[in-house]
Amino acid sequence: MAADLDETLEFQPRFDAQGLITAVVTDIGDGTLLMVAQMTAEALRLTLATGQAHFWSRSRQALWRKGEKSGEFLSVQEILTDCDQDVLQLKVEPHGRGAACHTGRRTCFYRRVKDGRLEFTGATPLFDPAKIYKR
Amino acid sequence: MAADLDETLEFQPRFDAQGLITAVVTDIGDGTLLMVAQMTAEALRLTLATGQAHFWSRSRQALWRKGEKSGEFLSVQEILTDCDQDVLQLKVEPHGRGAACHTGRRTCFYRRVKDGRLEFTGATPLFDPAKIYKR
Repeated sequence: MAADLDETLEFQPRFDAQGLITAVVTDIGDGTLLMVAQMTAEALRLTLATGQAHFWSRSRQALWRKGEKSGEFLSVQEILTDCDQDVLQLKVEPHGRGAACHTGRRTCFYRRVKDGRLEFTGATPLFDPAKIYKR
Repeated sequence: MAADLDETLEFQPRFDAQGLITAVVTDIGDGTLLMVAQMTAEALRLTLATGQAHFWSRSRQALWRKGEKSGEFLSVQEILTDCDQDVLQLKVEPHGRGAACHTGRRTCFYRRVKDGRLEFTGATPLFDPAKIYKR
């Protein structure tokens, strides 16, 4: 464990070699895990400054305000960090239709592992992604 | 997005270049985010086979059965994956004293960001880590 990171009150987020930190997004209402994304220092700064979740897209290599295309933005109510400060938790209030996932579902975690395969949990899409995102 | 990973029922966990996948651990009782750790394919296999959470420690470069030293093991009730299958969610029932964090707290997320610094959320340690872990 790096020098007492687990008890300090200094906020020292530990970005990895690519300059990224993992952000775990939960619904402040009922605690549901909505999505997991990556943040750069700039994404974190913008999130703190605006109160809206910003992330870094590794596939697009671009800063990204969540909801900028879909309207499904996330209002950040609280940010926590873990014991070694290499993960952030964002407690959010979802906006738009309340579909954090790009598939149109409330959460990205809509499939469970069962006997070596996946099954849907029953979370149905709240919007049609084909109408929102241009491929 | 890799070939329709977001709708398939094939379980194809995407391990990164280091052979790791991020596991987000939540309490099946009330959904609290407890910890975030890394898994290798072997850690995932052992978790599925035994029903107890196994992880990969990057600092120790070793496979690790959660609770093997502290007794704070995690009984895995459900595993979900996200839309692009690069994160797993483990819904667990905590055992021992119910302290998933090595600091003796219930959760690793016991500090919130406030005005550029951290403050404790009020989660107090359930055990004294100095008595459990030899450094």
